[in-house]
Amino acid sequence: MYTCSLERMTDKIKTFSKFGDAGHGGITRYSLSPEAHMARDEFVKRMKAIGAEIEVDDVANIYATIPGSDPDAKRIVMGSHCDSVKNGGNYDGILGVMSAMEVLETIVEDKIPHKHPLTAMIWTNEEGSLYPPAMMVSGIVCNDYLPPEIGKNFKYDDMMASKAMEAHEGSAPTFGEALAVSSYKGEREYRLSPDRYVANFETHIEQGPILEDNGKDIGVVQCVLGMFNYRVKFYGFAAHAGTFPMNKRHDALYAAAQALCYLHDEIDKLGRPELVYTTGEVSIHPCVHTVIPDYVDFSLDVRHEDPKVLEAVMNILKTLPEKTWAGCKCEIAEQWKRDTVYWDKNLVGFVQEAVDELGISNQKINSGAGHDAQFVSYMLPTTMIFVQSKDGLSHCEPEYSSPEHCTEGASVMLNAVLKADEFYK
Amino acid sequence: MYTCSLERMTDKIKTFSKFGDAGHGGITRYSLSPEAHMARDEFVKRMKAIGAEIEVDDVANIYATIPGSDPDAKRIVMGSHCDSVKNGGNYDGILGVMSAMEVLETIVEDKIPHKHPLTAMIWTNEEGSLYPPAMMVSGIVCNDYLPPEIGKNFKYDDMMASKAMEAHEGSAPTFGEALAVSSYKGEREYRLSPDRYVANFETHIEQGPILEDNGKDIGVVQCVLGMFNYRVKFYGFAAHAGTFPMNKRHDALYAAAQALCYLHDEIDKLGRPELVYTTGEVSIHPCVHTVIPDYVDFSLDVRHEDPKVLEAVMNILKTLPEKTWAGCKCEIAEQWKRDTVYWDKNLVGFVQEAVDELGISNQKINSGAGHDAQFVSYMLPTTMIFVQSKDGLSHCEPEYSSPEHCTEGASVMLNAVLKADEFYK
Repeated sequence: MYTCSLERMTDKIKTFSKFGDAGHGGITRYSLSPEAHMARDEFVKRMKAIGAEIEVDDVANIYATIPGSDPDAKRIVMGSHCDSVKNGGNYDGILGVMSAMEVLETIVEDKIPHKHPLTAMIWTNEEGSLYPPAMMVSGIVCNDYLPPEIGKNFKYDDMMASKAMEAHEGSAPTFGEALAVSSYKGEREYRLSPDRYVANFETHIEQGPILEDNGKDIGVVQCVLGMFNYRVKFYGFAAHAGTFPMNKRHDALYAAAQALCYLHDEIDKLGRPELVYTTGEVSIHPCVHTVIPDYVDFSLDVRHEDPKVLEAVMNILKTLPEKTWAGCKCEIAEQWKRDTVYWDKNLVGFVQEAVDELGISNQKINSGAGHDAQFVSYMLPTTMIFVQSKDGLSHCEPEYSSPEHCTEGASVMLNAVLKADEFYK
Repeated sequence: MYTCSLERMTDKIKTFSKFGDAGHGGITRYSLSPEAHMARDEFVKRMKAIGAEIEVDDVANIYATIPGSDPDAKRIVMGSHCDSVKNGGNYDGILGVMSAMEVLETIVEDKIPHKHPLTAMIWTNEEGSLYPPAMMVSGIVCNDYLPPEIGKNFKYDDMMASKAMEAHEGSAPTFGEALAVSSYKGEREYRLSPDRYVANFETHIEQGPILEDNGKDIGVVQCVLGMFNYRVKFYGFAAHAGTFPMNKRHDALYAAAQALCYLHDEIDKLGRPELVYTTGEVSIHPCVHTVIPDYVDFSLDVRHEDPKVLEAVMNILKTLPEKTWAGCKCEIAEQWKRDTVYWDKNLVGFVQEAVDELGISNQKINSGAGHDAQFVSYMLPTTMIFVQSKDGLSHCEPEYSSPEHCTEGASVMLNAVLKADEFYK
């Protein structure tokens, strides 16, 4: 068994945490921003230092490749993203990049024999924080392989036209415009494809508390949970808070509050502790303290491995428009839906063997979050490795995984990749 | 009995509705905006046409005065504001100005004898739509007379420093800066004061459905309801929607939804149909559909004539922090509080006599909304007249009162003013 370097990983964590440092422990590093370019430059510098060949595709993905002993073998790729959410942490995404770097660095330093060329990769714009949607660029690159109902949301031209979320009208470039002037706009021929690549690994922080609660360092990821995302809308009418009697009101906010409590009550009755559902986003009109709201909508994000459980939640959701909520009309609208995506059985097996052989505490786990690996899995055999997250926190500045756990994650990927290197011809 | 001119009032409504016409039936006319200046210019033009003397004070209030027969008598003032909320209607505020104009125009045209000088007035920045707070300028002018806990919120220097609500940071003038360059910046000596004025009337649309529901054209306003405004805050913590188990969540939005339903249930148990309470404004952090909200707060605006009823609601509110809401901590913070303000008994009596003698259908009514008259009432005997609002709608573009009802309101004010003219020496 081979192991990666705690010292080198610690140095990488420290270095990459500077790019976009928001001054209170985390980073804001939007895709194609100057901060993201600093992280990309650091990646290129370090990969060149070990003799890797750098390629950049037309959507700014970077591929750093070391050769294998078989000149005809396809590449095995490892990677993740270097962009973050606003006021995000120092691990989400970049840990997968640093782990891939660490694997190549260890292989070069320790002269570990391998057949296939091995590639460390940075994906562009996974978070979609500035230019929505999330997983934009893997959606573009894997588009021909995605189920049509997913692929239609990631058409190249539409993605290029994506407007910056925080832009004042007309004052900011689209994603395509920002890409065109980026120093990381490369050639389409370098895109990840089954013609040149044979398997894909992604190491990521868990972003949840399960590993920590169970005292496990590493998660052997089995699948990405199926999910759906709905918008629940309430239509009332506005009137003056001081002059309009209660019994004549059609208060869209009170309607939404009642419906949210009803959803919690009904969904909890399903008795599925592993089911997660979240209302994170709410829009209120006009949102003035002296005006009764005439319109409110909220998001509902629901995730579970079993499609039957998702369907049961959907059936509860569908009862909402049949009822009247505080005199308001209710509508529901599907935003997004995906089935559970299972990782490649062979690759999952290699990860399990590697972590067991390394003697690292581990467990099987599912991914509740989406990742670029999920889209890649329609194109190439793919799997993921999770590293314990402190307190289960992610997408926030206190996000933390210890250097020891991060290095363990890289060591597991290293050995799993070497098993894949033997398995694939 | 004297009556105002339906034709002239109709013309005024049509004319003033142009200034800030938002293109779909209503207006946006922020204080000190070019649109507001157009309305002011029209007021001045029409008042000069009947021989009124124009004065402008240092906070841009305009006073148009016609002389009375007694050279030593103080003035009786009638007025309201010409600014609106965003996408507001054609009646809130400006109807009181148009009614005051109509009273002077009728008196001049019909040569109606009167002792006191009579003043039609435009108040600056009643809505506080661009430069908060609402009732800013009456708060300044009446400051020495206000209860200290109210007056402290309207200190001159603080008000001048009020920043435009929609301003991008640093890019817009403060209220004071906008005032300094306004053509309606006048002299402090002209401010409304008991030295020169003896009584104050304000005609306004009802902004609620009570008059229409009861088939009454005019409301004889008795008081402005006491109210309090609180902010209810919930502190949880953020985590990823897909990765964080339900039983470990501290979801600030679910907490807020439960608390809102609880408040409705408990307040409704008080069995006070005339009580109004509203949550119009909600703030959610981070408001991302894949993140469990870590912070939510909402406004609670409560209004009733009887302080005991307000106290009963306050006692319900105070139980919130004692409970845990979806694992979140709850805090409450008072924003604003005022006691019920009763109008001057003599003036209310004159309005009641006038409307009865004119044979116009009417009823006693309370004002749920705040008005400049409320601050003036601490300084001068004051009362208000309400005109029926269609469907009770206000602060929105469908806001409507018929020209007939508007003219009736002016006629009631005219005759009530003439009674006050006789009453005061």
